[in-house]
Amino acid sequence: MEKKGPYTVRELKNLSPGTQFWGKYLILGKNLRKTRDGREIIDLRIGDSTGEIYSIVWESCTVNGQLEAGVVIGLLGDIGTYNQRLQVTAKRIKILEEEAGPYLKKPQASLEELIGMFEQMLQSIADPYLKELLQRVFNPETRTRFFQAPAAKKIHHNYYGGLLEHSLSVAGLCNKVADTYPDINRDLLLSGALMHDIGKLAEYEMDVAPNYTPEGRLLGHIVLGSELVADKIKDMKKEGIEFPQELEWMLKHLLVSHHGSLEFGSPVLPLFTEAYILYAMDNLDARIYVFQNKIEEDDGDDKYFSKYDSFYGQHFFTYRY
Amino acid sequence: MEKKGPYTVRELKNLSPGTQFWGKYLILGKNLRKTRDGREIIDLRIGDSTGEIYSIVWESCTVNGQLEAGVVIGLLGDIGTYNQRLQVTAKRIKILEEEAGPYLKKPQASLEELIGMFEQMLQSIADPYLKELLQRVFNPETRTRFFQAPAAKKIHHNYYGGLLEHSLSVAGLCNKVADTYPDINRDLLLSGALMHDIGKLAEYEMDVAPNYTPEGRLLGHIVLGSELVADKIKDMKKEGIEFPQELEWMLKHLLVSHHGSLEFGSPVLPLFTEAYILYAMDNLDARIYVFQNKIEEDDGDDKYFSKYDSFYGQHFFTYRY
Amino acid sequence: MEKKGPYTVRELKNLSPGTQFWGKYLILGKNLRKTRDGREIIDLRIGDSTGEIYSIVWESCTVNGQLEAGVVIGLLGDIGTYNQRLQVTAKRIKILEEEAGPYLKKPQASLEELIGMFEQMLQSIADPYLKELLQRVFNPETRTRFFQAPAAKKIHHNYYGGLLEHSLSVAGLCNKVADTYPDINRDLLLSGALMHDIGKLAEYEMDVAPNYTPEGRLLGHIVLGSELVADKIKDMKKEGIEFPQELEWMLKHLLVSHHGSLEFGSPVLPLFTEAYILYAMDNLDARIYVFQNKIEEDDGDDKYFSKYDSFYGQHFFTYRY
Amino acid sequence: MEKKGPYTVRELKNLSPGTQFWGKYLILGKNLRKTRDGREIIDLRIGDSTGEIYSIVWESCTVNGQLEAGVVIGLLGDIGTYNQRLQVTAKRIKILEEEAGPYLKKPQASLEELIGMFEQMLQSIADPYLKELLQRVFNPETRTRFFQAPAAKKIHHNYYGGLLEHSLSVAGLCNKVADTYPDINRDLLLSGALMHDIGKLAEYEMDVAPNYTPEGRLLGHIVLGSELVADKIKDMKKEGIEFPQELEWMLKHLLVSHHGSLEFGSPVLPLFTEAYILYAMDNLDARIYVFQNKIEEDDGDDKYFSKYDSFYGQHFFTYRY
Amino acid sequence: MEKKGPYTVRELKNLSPGTQFWGKYLILGKNLRKTRDGREIIDLRIGDSTGEIYSIVWESCTVNGQLEAGVVIGLLGDIGTYNQRLQVTAKRIKILEEEAGPYLKKPQASLEELIGMFEQMLQSIADPYLKELLQRVFNPETRTRFFQAPAAKKIHHNYYGGLLEHSLSVAGLCNKVADTYPDINRDLLLSGALMHDIGKLAEYEMDVAPNYTPEGRLLGHIVLGSELVADKIKDMKKEGIEFPQELEWMLKHLLVSHHGSLEFGSPVLPLFTEAYILYAMDNLDARIYVFQNKIEEDDGDDKYFSKYDSFYGQHFFTYRY
Amino acid sequence: MEKKGPYTVRELKNLSPGTQFWGKYLILGKNLRKTRDGREIIDLRIGDSTGEIYSIVWESCTVNGQLEAGVVIGLLGDIGTYNQRLQVTAKRIKILEEEAGPYLKKPQASLEELIGMFEQMLQSIADPYLKELLQRVFNPETRTRFFQAPAAKKIHHNYYGGLLEHSLSVAGLCNKVADTYPDINRDLLLSGALMHDIGKLAEYEMDVAPNYTPEGRLLGHIVLGSELVADKIKDMKKEGIEFPQELEWMLKHLLVSHHGSLEFGSPVLPLFTEAYILYAMDNLDARIYVFQNKIEEDDGDDKYFSKYDSFYGQHFFTYRY
Repeated sequence: MEKKGPYTVRELKNLSPGTQFWGKYLILGKNLRKTRDGREIIDLRIGDSTGEIYSIVWESCTVNGQLEAGVVIGLLGDIGTYNQRLQVTAKRIKILEEEAGPYLKKPQASLEELIGMFEQMLQSIADPYLKELLQRVFNPETRTRFFQAPAAKKIHHNYYGGLLEHSLSVAGLCNKVADTYPDINRDLLLSGALMHDIGKLAEYEMDVAPNYTPEGRLLGHIVLGSELVADKIKDMKKEGIEFPQELEWMLKHLLVSHHGSLEFGSPVLPLFTEAYILYAMDNLDARIYVFQNKIEEDDGDDKYFSKYDSFYGQHFFTYRY
Repeated sequence: MEKKGPYTVRELKNLSPGTQFWGKYLILGKNLRKTRDGREIIDLRIGDSTGEIYSIVWESCTVNGQLEAGVVIGLLGDIGTYNQRLQVTAKRIKILEEEAGPYLKKPQASLEELIGMFEQMLQSIADPYLKELLQRVFNPETRTRFFQAPAAKKIHHNYYGGLLEHSLSVAGLCNKVADTYPDINRDLLLSGALMHDIGKLAEYEMDVAPNYTPEGRLLGHIVLGSELVADKIKDMKKEGIEFPQELEWMLKHLLVSHHGSLEFGSPVLPLFTEAYILYAMDNLDARIYVFQNKIEEDDGDDKYFSKYDSFYGQHFFTYRY
Repeated sequence: MEKKGPYTVRELKNLSPGTQFWGKYLILGKNLRKTRDGREIIDLRIGDSTGEIYSIVWESCTVNGQLEAGVVIGLLGDIGTYNQRLQVTAKRIKILEEEAGPYLKKPQASLEELIGMFEQMLQSIADPYLKELLQRVFNPETRTRFFQAPAAKKIHHNYYGGLLEHSLSVAGLCNKVADTYPDINRDLLLSGALMHDIGKLAEYEMDVAPNYTPEGRLLGHIVLGSELVADKIKDMKKEGIEFPQELEWMLKHLLVSHHGSLEFGSPVLPLFTEAYILYAMDNLDARIYVFQNKIEEDDGDDKYFSKYDSFYGQHFFTYRY
Repeated sequence: MEKKGPYTVRELKNLSPGTQFWGKYLILGKNLRKTRDGREIIDLRIGDSTGEIYSIVWESCTVNGQLEAGVVIGLLGDIGTYNQRLQVTAKRIKILEEEAGPYLKKPQASLEELIGMFEQMLQSIADPYLKELLQRVFNPETRTRFFQAPAAKKIHHNYYGGLLEHSLSVAGLCNKVADTYPDINRDLLLSGALMHDIGKLAEYEMDVAPNYTPEGRLLGHIVLGSELVADKIKDMKKEGIEFPQELEWMLKHLLVSHHGSLEFGSPVLPLFTEAYILYAMDNLDARIYVFQNKIEEDDGDDKYFSKYDSFYGQHFFTYRY
Repeated sequence: MEKKGPYTVRELKNLSPGTQFWGKYLILGKNLRKTRDGREIIDLRIGDSTGEIYSIVWESCTVNGQLEAGVVIGLLGDIGTYNQRLQVTAKRIKILEEEAGPYLKKPQASLEELIGMFEQMLQSIADPYLKELLQRVFNPETRTRFFQAPAAKKIHHNYYGGLLEHSLSVAGLCNKVADTYPDINRDLLLSGALMHDIGKLAEYEMDVAPNYTPEGRLLGHIVLGSELVADKIKDMKKEGIEFPQELEWMLKHLLVSHHGSLEFGSPVLPLFTEAYILYAMDNLDARIYVFQNKIEEDDGDDKYFSKYDSFYGQHFFTYRY
Repeated sequence: MEKKGPYTVRELKNLSPGTQFWGKYLILGKNLRKTRDGREIIDLRIGDSTGEIYSIVWESCTVNGQLEAGVVIGLLGDIGTYNQRLQVTAKRIKILEEEAGPYLKKPQASLEELIGMFEQMLQSIADPYLKELLQRVFNPETRTRFFQAPAAKKIHHNYYGGLLEHSLSVAGLCNKVADTYPDINRDLLLSGALMHDIGKLAEYEMDVAPNYTPEGRLLGHIVLGSELVADKIKDMKKEGIEFPQELEWMLKHLLVSHHGSLEFGSPVLPLFTEAYILYAMDNLDARIYVFQNKIEEDDGDDKYFSKYDSFYGQHFFTYRY
């Protein structure tokens, strides 16, 4: 619990039922509806960097200003339980003139650190064709967007910077695997790792939370990413810069096969070692995120297990030895 | 049975065991091996436009010239049975100076007819953006290759002109379905039908039979085709020719979703009517080819059923009422 | 919006939240319940030919007469939102003496048109055995029921006349496919198309909406339909009218295999061309219905996509170019 | 080893490589072919009630009479190994005038015993409707065929009398399960058990081994059996003999659902207890047959396990404690 | 309806909406929550041996004492409907000093009868190794727990004594199957049947309803049971009591394979007859429980079918002929 | 090619058709059979550390001594092709008195190096409970067997020392992943990695190639390994050495869940981070082995792809950039 100006910021993940509190939060979503007996209610989904919660705003609540997704508010509220979930009943709301950024979930390391790691990774690629290509794919315009993008809508790293964080994590794992085995083309593997989700720049758009773009739903980041890389290679060739045929095939294959199987949306299976490693490390990083997030989110009701997760079809064991 | 110069051309599908014959055939494949007791044998796979068969060439057989895949030969042989399949024992072989073309399996209509139908179909597209795009995709260079290409390695339309024949057939079916239902965008649907397998130009290469290219196996015709169309649209835009954003998404979606499900290699499901129709008609034309081919190939051993087909997991009912 | 007697009929699909309206609707379902604090509420599901909606009737609402499923009412109500769905709060309800028919969802063409098309289709069958059989299957008694029946409980064509509309649509598509390919037995295929869902006469019963009969759930329309056709052929034989053995097998096979695979409830796979075409066209017509219905039902909240449909596991792209 | 007239009958399952023997066997199949160097060979598949083996007949072998499937022969031969399987090289063959019956695989109990058990089971059914129906289904004509029929083409009970043996076995198991639980309708369950595979009378025809009929492949025994039972009930009704509606539904459901799931060819799932029991007991009897047969067939090469069975995807443990 | 002291015990399965009643029930679960307008509500899940229901307790309800899961209460309440389910509104509640036992669901036979059957089954095992092992596995301490344990968390036999009841039932079925076929090792099969779910002693713990233990979720009763049996055999060996190697393998295989397939959690398939029979009978007893329970639970709304069961993906036919 | 005494050792992977050679090899398998015309042939499977090949031994070949699997021979032979595979025709064979060891496939590092790495890994475990347990699991007797064992029958690391090599590789990967993420219990993870396949000591036995033991097929290494670890922990407890309850559960869970899903033979899914990492790294190491082996085995017929591999359902891309 930390003091910020006149407000005591209560982190959402620490709220407990039956208490009243003051805090500053970001409006993530808003829904206006009428009860059956005709009263108007606003359902707000509010969040800070530690979590999110629903807040109900009755007509009786004092609100100075316009409630909209993306706006930061000061909120006095009571915590209660509804349908076995925590819920806030808003007492007073004040619109604040603050940036949404600090109230969004974010990577564990700072953006500066992540960018530093990214630059270092780029510079470690020695193959001249891949080096040149990476500079073109990650040109200043793309770079800006890449550093802001989320890595998914829901499952993992679904926040500003999540795509950068995830891509670095996958590249880091690939790097270590490449050290372990002989005959791995490290430059190819790392280039693939850094660009494997580049199509997500076109697949998602961030409002305050990631959403699919129409293009994203109609084509998917696998096709979009492969097309982007193909374009940059064509540009090189047009400018008279060579790019070996086999290297182009292999790099695009890394992108296209990185979901590992047809039923998970790769139109081809990984057909050589680097492609398989990239698939495996992408999957591993996403799953570790899920496992660790389950422990963080855990409400502690049960000493050993999380609630049932119907997406993964399991309870997660949250106890740490 | 038809006279051609000094030879009596016996169609392969009409040969029966226990007879001797003269004929002209194309060598489709050749394998040299040694028997266990040290004698050299050549196994030839020979074909004409009606079928194919294996021919065994012992050292004692007279051969004037060099046996190679792609070469047309005159052959005197005996038909026998080996491992329940017909097989020719070659007695005399003469290399002929003929083109391979007439000895290859080919579409039912002539290439001229098919090209005529293709041009007519192209001209029936009224939407100006799609019309322009089709001219660019089917530029003279592509057109030449498109008219020669096979539609698959094995399952269906696996011969010169097969891709054209199949694409027209699918477009024809789509046209009829578009007539049946209101609110179908016929131009979009037909454009998608004509270009749906365009990536196969890069996926296969023809020797005397279709083979995968490395690019084809590593990326697949879905990704390759989508990229080709995307390129042509980019070219248009660079030249200042407009192409509506949604139309681009929808057209590329038609290509990308045309296998109908993830497990069959489309990274996205068909998400609107035209995409579903294209998938259904592509599948229907291929399957009808298979059914009708089973009847043609049938050896007549059983009045009602073909032999078990392990790929489709069924016997085909070959009786016609 | 159309004037009918003293009422202004508001089509259900055009209602928008926050307004009051008068209209005439059919009661599709009724549920009486008590709130937790003891007040009695009636939940009505009401519909007209354009859609359906839930209406809540509090004790305070004036109702003259008895509310029952199948009854037409005049309704004064307020439109609101509850759990993100539109809902009517009834203010005044009057029981009307009207037939339910005009308030039910119905085919796009009129019943007369459909029957005309059906008769024409029947007469186009030239094979004498099939012609005779169709007259017996579609005898006057069956015909009456066939023209009234729905084609499904939920997914597609689930209204009076839906079975006729769907059967004609499938037969029309089959007819076009038969034109496209050589060696299709058109009479067999069309006969199969017209009768493929004949078992649904016994599988469903219409109240105001389709319901499964016990026989329908225990045996399914595939077995019921095949049995019905078998019976009629037996009748012919008993009367000394010949019916070729193979034709009987093939026709029954068309009915029995028309779901296309075992996991969708056909005990055998389609084993010849006509059977595969029937399966494909049945599936296509049902899916096009679903796609087009998604566009009609769409609430316009999102410019491009429908809400997530958990049955099909996808969002539908509702934008039309 | 038993003396029969001038021949020493060697049971096929006791032959071992490297020996010469005399014996009497039935020809199960015959294939004439030519070797690559032009010699004619006949491949005979011969069997007795204990097993079967391939015998190769070179031109040098003395044969008095015509070799045909279904003929009993006296055979002098040498046992050898070819492609890791035992094989006989025929030295002398004599056509004998004997019935094929005793040389076929058959049930463990005698046919008389089985028929006795069958009659007893029929008489134990007390429900008058089912009793009458069973008399009609198992009329003298059907009974004759039912007592001769096989229960499958390959997997289990694939011999004369196999259908009777299997049906009794399933009915016996059902009877015991019915004793264990309250509220099981024993008469319904046993009637279903006796008739569950009745459609196989039309699905298979016996030559010397079972083969599918065209009707069998096109429709399957589930549909054929259900139709047969439906016919007999219709006959009863036409003759003014009542048959309760629900009982008809339930009995037909037993037949139609007895494969237990859609992917195994039942168009509906078992929806009540008796239907589930019938499915489970049918499956159990067939699988126990397979397990016990694996032990019988076992060549003893490995003390503990059979060879890999690719149909079941496992080795069978053949050791008995 | 039975008089017990001052209260009229109403069996829960006989309650109907719109009536007031007195009765004695066990609290199975309790949840405290606040309504949106701030009132406190307690949701109780209460049960007796015939069923369970939710009861809502408003602040206005008189309660003398502390409401906790496991406590028996006297309850005056009104039956109503909420969200299409019956629900009790509590008027007055009194905590009673009674044991929970009689209010819990229980086996159909008395515990004494079940134990008698169990002892008899144990004594019927003649094989000396298995006899000794069973005495050790079912030592007095285990026996006490085994007689109290449930057989599952939800699906079947989920009550005190359920494990014993289920194990006996499976053993009884196995015994009958062993009688039907030659060459079944009855002692092995029955020993396996009695111990097949022994790992559930560690997998579940009973509060008033079964819950998974952490060990149960992390390892599962298949591994836990196999380990327990292995331990007891090791103890025998340490004490110098022989146990045949093959018998140990086979018995443990029975436990480990009894779910019948990998996807249902057996790490190996049943590889010999007894293992397959145990799997089939375990499954059969559980499924018959489900079928019969559906009939018992049925609310009679529909003459023929239960509501849709999403776990089994079907409606159950509840009509009895 | 290396000189060893009087013989020129030709590595098997370097042989090419049409040449004669001398070399020393190990007999891996032997099969005696008769040709159809009565001549005796011996088929030998021979190998050295680089590969294996079939050699055919006619009666005319000189053999001094007894040919048996496990024996080292000197062989003069001709290389030919049979059924598209290389095959040796033996001219002269001499039994040699050499150890089989040097002729077997083996790990890339020497056994000494691997053992050194293993000891180091063991010593890096700091947790006292795990440290003690590892000493007991890897006691001198087990260690000897562990250092000799194969990791699989066919797919990967199927040679002496393969289990050690694979376990170290998995542990090494796990170590690196543990470095990458916070909150991983490295000691738990590495202990699990080292012991994850310990059950394979009982699952396989080595002759000259790995074979399943009966126990291995009936129970599987997952159950066998878990039991072994459970035993050692019980021993510790009996000796009064504590072992935390949760640690025991978690460690056994690592072993039991390491196949990652039920259909691959784990009776439970990985439920916490370390278990998922172990599964992923085990799978990765095995798959990389397969990919790299495909490149090594490649015959170079095709510049880019291996032959079709039906187990993995793909061609492998063998080109290295």
